[in-house]
Amino acid sequence: MAAIADIMPESSRIALVDMLRAILPAHAVLTDAEAMKPYECDGLSAYRQLPMLVVLPQSVEDVQRILKVAHETGTKVVARGSGTGLSGGATPLGDGILLSLAKFNRIVSVDPLARTARVQPGVRNLKISEDVAHLGLYYAPDPSSQIACSIGGNVAENAGGVHCLKYGLTVHNVQKIEVVTIDGTRATIGSDALDTPGYDLLALMTGSEGMLGVTTEVTVKLVPKPQLARVVMASFDDIEKAGDAVANIIGAGIVPAGLEMMDKLANAAVEDFVHAGYDLNAEAILLCESDGTPEDVEEEIARMEAVLKASGATACRVSSNEAERLKFWSGRKAAFPAVGRISPDYYCIDGSIPRRALSPVLKRTAALSLHYKLRCANVFHAGDGNLHPLILFDANIPGELERTEQFAADILELCINYGGTITGEHGVGIEKINQMCSQFTDNEREMFFAVKRAFDPSMLLNPGKAIPTLNRCAEYGRMRVHGGQLAHADIPRF
Amino acid sequence: MAAIADIMPESSRIALVDMLRAILPAHAVLTDAEAMKPYECDGLSAYRQLPMLVVLPQSVEDVQRILKVAHETGTKVVARGSGTGLSGGATPLGDGILLSLAKFNRIVSVDPLARTARVQPGVRNLKISEDVAHLGLYYAPDPSSQIACSIGGNVAENAGGVHCLKYGLTVHNVQKIEVVTIDGTRATIGSDALDTPGYDLLALMTGSEGMLGVTTEVTVKLVPKPQLARVVMASFDDIEKAGDAVANIIGAGIVPAGLEMMDKLANAAVEDFVHAGYDLNAEAILLCESDGTPEDVEEEIARMEAVLKASGATACRVSSNEAERLKFWSGRKAAFPAVGRISPDYYCIDGSIPRRALSPVLKRTAALSLHYKLRCANVFHAGDGNLHPLILFDANIPGELERTEQFAADILELCINYGGTITGEHGVGIEKINQMCSQFTDNEREMFFAVKRAFDPSMLLNPGKAIPTLNRCAEYGRMRVHGGQLAHADIPRF
Repeated sequence: MAAIADIMPESSRIALVDMLRAILPAHAVLTDAEAMKPYECDGLSAYRQLPMLVVLPQSVEDVQRILKVAHETGTKVVARGSGTGLSGGATPLGDGILLSLAKFNRIVSVDPLARTARVQPGVRNLKISEDVAHLGLYYAPDPSSQIACSIGGNVAENAGGVHCLKYGLTVHNVQKIEVVTIDGTRATIGSDALDTPGYDLLALMTGSEGMLGVTTEVTVKLVPKPQLARVVMASFDDIEKAGDAVANIIGAGIVPAGLEMMDKLANAAVEDFVHAGYDLNAEAILLCESDGTPEDVEEEIARMEAVLKASGATACRVSSNEAERLKFWSGRKAAFPAVGRISPDYYCIDGSIPRRALSPVLKRTAALSLHYKLRCANVFHAGDGNLHPLILFDANIPGELERTEQFAADILELCINYGGTITGEHGVGIEKINQMCSQFTDNEREMFFAVKRAFDPSMLLNPGKAIPTLNRCAEYGRMRVHGGQLAHADIPRF
Repeated sequence: MAAIADIMPESSRIALVDMLRAILPAHAVLTDAEAMKPYECDGLSAYRQLPMLVVLPQSVEDVQRILKVAHETGTKVVARGSGTGLSGGATPLGDGILLSLAKFNRIVSVDPLARTARVQPGVRNLKISEDVAHLGLYYAPDPSSQIACSIGGNVAENAGGVHCLKYGLTVHNVQKIEVVTIDGTRATIGSDALDTPGYDLLALMTGSEGMLGVTTEVTVKLVPKPQLARVVMASFDDIEKAGDAVANIIGAGIVPAGLEMMDKLANAAVEDFVHAGYDLNAEAILLCESDGTPEDVEEEIARMEAVLKASGATACRVSSNEAERLKFWSGRKAAFPAVGRISPDYYCIDGSIPRRALSPVLKRTAALSLHYKLRCANVFHAGDGNLHPLILFDANIPGELERTEQFAADILELCINYGGTITGEHGVGIEKINQMCSQFTDNEREMFFAVKRAFDPSMLLNPGKAIPTLNRCAEYGRMRVHGGQLAHADIPRF
């Protein structure tokens, strides 16, 4: 506990624990290092930090009381869902409270006519779809972590997934939320109707990485399960041709239910793992899905095949039944663990570019891979222009993690240079806070700070995430100019 | 000019005019009452006020310079597009600058691959679709005023339209904007990629009624023109059955391209005007459109017909060709002018409710119509639950406008009571500022003020619109309790 004592005097910490124990049951306040261990990182596990303490509220009133104590004592708070986020949005602070919403795990109600479900923030993404399946409905955004990730975390990071090309990101699939702000105020944001008057605080809160308030309930939109879905798996002998095919599909006015790309390295890793019949000779494959009525799907699949072949596909296979469709997808779904089998460590980047930039950015990424002498597998939401380069490295080889981080930073800068952004769906967190300096001007970042101050003037909610200070950006600028090493948030690396 | 002199000393006004004339060409600063007459109101024409002066900037630099002058002199600014808004969002202030964006009327560029168009804010909504028609694309949101309304105004009010059920509101169809804030700062909000890091300022700006910044460029998303569209016109002998049919259509998992309702009074007015063959015996008709591939449309139209008949439709006609489809729609499109022919004046309300509340709210509205002895025609976006009751009145009969406003206020309160909101697509402006007191708690309205202060701390951009002060709400509460008359913004009525 030495590290914590360094940050906050032990007497203050004890006083705070006493205040929290006075308003919460004993088992809802964790202070023991061993008990807090599971909370020391989220999916960005290269960065670990024990929080000062962990609280496990069970009701909105609990959350209000905790935030009031934090507000009064000037204590920082980091909210956490399932901890599957990849950008360190839930990385704890050594002098902060870690507020877990794990006990908010109830589906409150489902309204089939309005096609909505009111759920608590700790409910798992996939659980919603499972619970409404008997109504022929589902919740569309499907991050890879959907079996584990929480809907509150999805709201905090504006999570995406394979089907976001057609069905939108989290922000497009949430109707209403309940939040508690740092002073303990409870507010409803959004409504049960089409539009809500006043500023669009619902969109503002979505993706705000827990920096404006703590979400205590989410009303999600549900969509009807399509009658049928089929997928085309197309092979290309050149990754740039595959990139152009993506642009051509969209340019032809088709909106696929999913449009994913995997390169040769990813295919090899995956095929060895799931044996789904992937084309190992292809430089890249595309998975292009159509869903809807059988008539619609048949017509759309034919158009997709025509565009893919005209774009230079060397082979096209169309799933002939649901089992085959799931088999085609199994490789894509297992891509991350499959890559994990061929490398001691891998680092997943999340950048977003206009579709027309796919080919040049993939080409430049390949060149960077040679430059840094690090393998890079590409598995990504091509239709959205949402890249996920997986850099393969070995953290035990001195300097490899640092080289990996430089490679990653270069890819993100590349995305910005091609008119894109440094995140498609994973958020900024601590992972990409430096690149926010390149993405935005000082004026634009000042707008973010102004919004932050509007909701949390004492900067207690998840400070140090997502929005870099002017100083940090000045330092990052100097480092980029001098080709120096990138500094992450000031959190010990494990 | 006496009224203006009352508000601001003539010497200050002359000094301000001199400052603006020093930075703009002479013809770009209007101060003459006659020249300013066209700017005295927007579509909420019951409220008129000459501005202190009108400026007509031609470049972003002009806008920056004007706002800097306003900021330095503490002068209020109201931005204006085409002035077609229905809630008074562009109603001028007697002591404020009216900033017209009429000269920002250029389509900057079109990117067919990215399916986007960069346009200046004064470009008319329909002009975008006309200009990209040869690419097989169009801009989806289609407010009734689309021939005249500007895209900048659409962004300010988050405009909707007939096709928003399937294609979304303005906020869902805008990719990026450029804004100038009150201190003259120019900022880009949004990006050319799928997602943008940081808080979602793009959604925050959309629908903010010119209170956070002045939009100087808009990048809109374009969608492929569907191959085919057909519409079912269904008759009902009972308006509540029609309301339930709407819920049943959506409940069956169908997402129509448009789903509109018109009642008997509206049908009669329209049929007499456009002779489109509307069923004059029906208590209500529904227009339910399907678009997509021919196969998809055929299948969806069959499903729509089946649900409509099962919901009690007494007749269903399906358009057999494009000419007939446009004829079926001609009545809906002409509904407002048609109602204008049967009444000296009419007042269009814009409220939004969950679809399940359609029947009870329509029933209560009919009862209110009897109570207030004012006819009310219903023409609205039923699929969205977005009501547009048209109250028929004669402003020359003493007391009728006041009764109309009370009727309107009651309808909006009804929407709130049924879980809905006081606007679907027209915005709040000055028209519905009192009802914001019922819609939101003090805490929730304080969040809006906090955001306003973050962008415009001296409250110079369109003050007095959209967000009521605590005092105003206290007064409104007292009036509602005592059944008193409703006060609008403190603007002289014409």
